Amino acid sequence: MAAPVFWLQTGLLCRVHGLCQAKRNIAFSQPVIQKIGNSLWKLGRLNHVAIAVPDLEKARSLYEIILGAQVSETVPLPEHGVYTVFVELGNTKLELLHPLGQNSPISGFLQKNKAGGLHHICIEVDNIKAAMASLKEKKIKILSEEPKIGAHGKPVVFLHPKDCDGVLVELEEA
Amino acid sequence: MAAPVFWLQTGLLCRVHGLCQAKRNIAFSQPVIQKIGNSLWKLGRLNHVAIAVPDLEKARSLYEIILGAQVSETVPLPEHGVYTVFVELGNTKLELLHPLGQNSPISGFLQKNKAGGLHHICIEVDNIKAAMASLKEKKIKILSEEPKIGAHGKPVVFLHPKDCDGVLVELEEA
Repeated sequence: MAAPVFWLQTGLLCRVHGLCQAKRNIAFSQPVIQKIGNSLWKLGRLNHVAIAVPDLEKARSLYEIILGAQVSETVPLPEHGVYTVFVELGNTKLELLHPLGQNSPISGFLQKNKAGGLHHICIEVDNIKAAMASLKEKKIKILSEEPKIGAHGKPVVFLHPKDCDGVLVELEEA
Repeated sequence: MAAPVFWLQTGLLCRVHGLCQAKRNIAFSQPVIQKIGNSLWKLGRLNHVAIAVPDLEKARSLYEIILGAQVSETVPLPEHGVYTVFVELGNTKLELLHPLGQNSPISGFLQKNKAGGLHHICIEVDNIKAAMASLKEKKIKILSEEPKIGAHGKPVVFLHPKDCDGVLVELEEA
């Protein structure tokens, strides 16, 4: 068996899914409009999932040629040490990141994850300043004091993985 | 600086995003309807992102109470060694997975990733058998010979991370 760990994971998920096959009436909580001071804010859609990849052309090929997705051109950003490619999935997108040059800021991630891996998720909010104030009050560590301008020309911040189940979470003002 | 690695990552992404702020006309490829034998298939939406978490109540609280998302009840599946929770984000969902019992199949993942982490992504296809045949022909390793029934009562398969940039990719027939 070439990769027993993944067989195990797959086995788990399929068995879990199998058990769920019987129709369930799973109760959902109601979405909440958070209030902080005089500001309201609300969580929105998943904007993208970012994947760090060791071979960008191979990754492009997987999504464009093999899986048939709509894929952007490769955008080299030499000043910032990365290439980026967007994979459009209809309801959201994948963002492929690859190092450019000797001192790329994502080289460390790829040294730890040589095959590549899931890097972060980005969720939209309607008011990033109100969200930041609310999250600070609730002791969620934010990785910058102020929002920066994101890929879509809108403000973004990142939440520390230690407060998000090991996941780097980006919030973008939609 | 508490977590320089994440500051670095954040710095990168913000700088990348900053550079992208100027309006870009990024060219996208056209989506492809794959043909294998007499069968056609097409890639669809991102169904979910799965996150393995060491503390399910803390994770539920993050998404439900702190971020204000619509979150499902916690579903214990003792026969399969996991709890599951779905976080509804409007366009797609997060699936929180947590071990149940001593021999949970996701314990290994959490031993390697003690804080938790992004576990897999699930993308929909319209014809899973045709997709499998096409992927096999293109030398993408599939982790089961036949689809299993997934969480929504529909067939699923997993693609090996070695062929997907280190990412465990689930395909679900929508």
